[in-house]
Amino acid sequence: MKEQLVLGIDLGGTYTKIGVVTKDGSIIATRKFKTGAKAPFPDFLKNLERELSGLKDTLDSSHELIAIGIGAPNANANSGNMEQAPNFRWGDAVPIVSEVEKILRLPVAIANDANASALGEQQFGMGKGMDNFVVITLGTGLGSGIISHGKLLTGAHGMAGELGHVNVDPSPNARQCNCGLKGCLETYVSVTGMRRTIFELIAEMRDDSPLRSISFEEMTGEIISDCALNGDPIALKAFEKTAETLGVQLADTAAHLDPEAFILLGGLSKAGDILLKPTIASMERNLFNAYTGKIRVLISDTPGDNAVLGPAALGWQRITDG
Amino acid sequence: MKEQLVLGIDLGGTYTKIGVVTKDGSIIATRKFKTGAKAPFPDFLKNLERELSGLKDTLDSSHELIAIGIGAPNANANSGNMEQAPNFRWGDAVPIVSEVEKILRLPVAIANDANASALGEQQFGMGKGMDNFVVITLGTGLGSGIISHGKLLTGAHGMAGELGHVNVDPSPNARQCNCGLKGCLETYVSVTGMRRTIFELIAEMRDDSPLRSISFEEMTGEIISDCALNGDPIALKAFEKTAETLGVQLADTAAHLDPEAFILLGGLSKAGDILLKPTIASMERNLFNAYTGKIRVLISDTPGDNAVLGPAALGWQRITDG
Repeated sequence: MKEQLVLGIDLGGTYTKIGVVTKDGSIIATRKFKTGAKAPFPDFLKNLERELSGLKDTLDSSHELIAIGIGAPNANANSGNMEQAPNFRWGDAVPIVSEVEKILRLPVAIANDANASALGEQQFGMGKGMDNFVVITLGTGLGSGIISHGKLLTGAHGMAGELGHVNVDPSPNARQCNCGLKGCLETYVSVTGMRRTIFELIAEMRDDSPLRSISFEEMTGEIISDCALNGDPIALKAFEKTAETLGVQLADTAAHLDPEAFILLGGLSKAGDILLKPTIASMERNLFNAYTGKIRVLISDTPGDNAVLGPAALGWQRITDG
Repeated sequence: MKEQLVLGIDLGGTYTKIGVVTKDGSIIATRKFKTGAKAPFPDFLKNLERELSGLKDTLDSSHELIAIGIGAPNANANSGNMEQAPNFRWGDAVPIVSEVEKILRLPVAIANDANASALGEQQFGMGKGMDNFVVITLGTGLGSGIISHGKLLTGAHGMAGELGHVNVDPSPNARQCNCGLKGCLETYVSVTGMRRTIFELIAEMRDDSPLRSISFEEMTGEIISDCALNGDPIALKAFEKTAETLGVQLADTAAHLDPEAFILLGGLSKAGDILLKPTIASMERNLFNAYTGKIRVLISDTPGDNAVLGPAALGWQRITDG
């Protein structure tokens, strides 16, 4: 009997990663190419088709591809489209699912990238055995995916779990968000949010810091995390403030969902305990008493290279759900 | 064949209401007695047993009671206990389900009162045909119940949906909540919250108002709603501020759950459009663009006298789920 495999596609703003994944989460082949978010959508499809064809050639007759899962920004699980993705010039509603079905003639499922990550953690990662948890991805923005009663929570319109855009600062001088709102969580808790915090702190504090010689555009999550791990006072203070805000929000999200755990992923989570400990402390201080001491906050052990696992989990689920 | 019936018990801080309810939500018999939240728990059980026995006597041989549903403050759906209910002196973990099972030897299910209301709206009310909605009860406090993918969302510890205790004001001078936290939604959006707002406005504004001759303790939700309906400027301003805060939170909750609708219940919802219109306006202003124009806000048409319907729906679900 042939070994059944699923194709996971992690469609990112910069790179698209493709992986062939087994039922137990082994990645047996991968490809990576530039997404071309500013180029026309048909160009992307052409590149995708070429890479998919190359990847299929590496499989032998003992393998059988049975489904495709796609994680993409602003993907709508119900419509199969990417909708109004701010960093893409592919149109307002991009029919990813139907176009990928044309290329490979296999069942295709799509989800918001962070929602796919939540499924990946459930099937292959730290969410194994948990029926209620929330994944928070701390990258350029803040994404989230909710597993509730064992299932991905997608909501009435396929767009549940946009925690990056809950309000954490109702004051008039709250930070402006790309989405048009003010005071959104991701303007504070994300790589971009931390850069903003660090620039405020550079203006406010007098401590020496290597961060003073880096421009706003050049300041990556890795640089910030490395500075904090080296004891830089500005980076440490920035993590403290970020963790405080994140903890308050985790408490609010707990009051909605009563999860078993929050699982943090992405660039900022590399800082480990520097992020984790003050986040847990802030969450516990702000939790409604029904939840105190009951909710874990974890950092994912899934390497960023394995970004195709979430989409692959979605593919496997597509088969199970029929 | 006998007609199957369910018993709904609405266990409130002041009164306990019992009703015998048909599959389609007709209430065929009711009882009401003082809960005695400050008296010992065994006293309550004695009263409950007496009333249940009286109610059973009104049924004839064509009826068959098959299950019991209970809605109660701070009820934990998993443990079957009321846990740390602030206005009750019955102990930290009150085993309601097991004690009621002893009295009637029928399957018993319990849920937080607002969670039970959500099931009631789903089975008998405005939530019919909706798989994703959130009920918000605006009484002395603020309760909530979440229906997600057709099911009551109970979470990992049976305590999901405590929206009264999400933070809406992170500033140092936020209002203190009974729960020990500061800035909780229910300190602004509830009858108690509106009283606090009105007392601030009485201090701030110069307008004549009948509210100036009513003490804090005497100011009920009905009085506030009536004043607003009569055009009282202080009551109207209080509703405007309350609706603004509620709308911001509904937007945040939408970013978690992507519901089809919010359904408002309880004392304050009696104000109708005075509450509803500015709530919708505030929610829309604060919604992430993926949701704008898609989420309805409704006022329940279930009369308060029908508080047993939610618990009864829970009883019916208990039978269906086995």
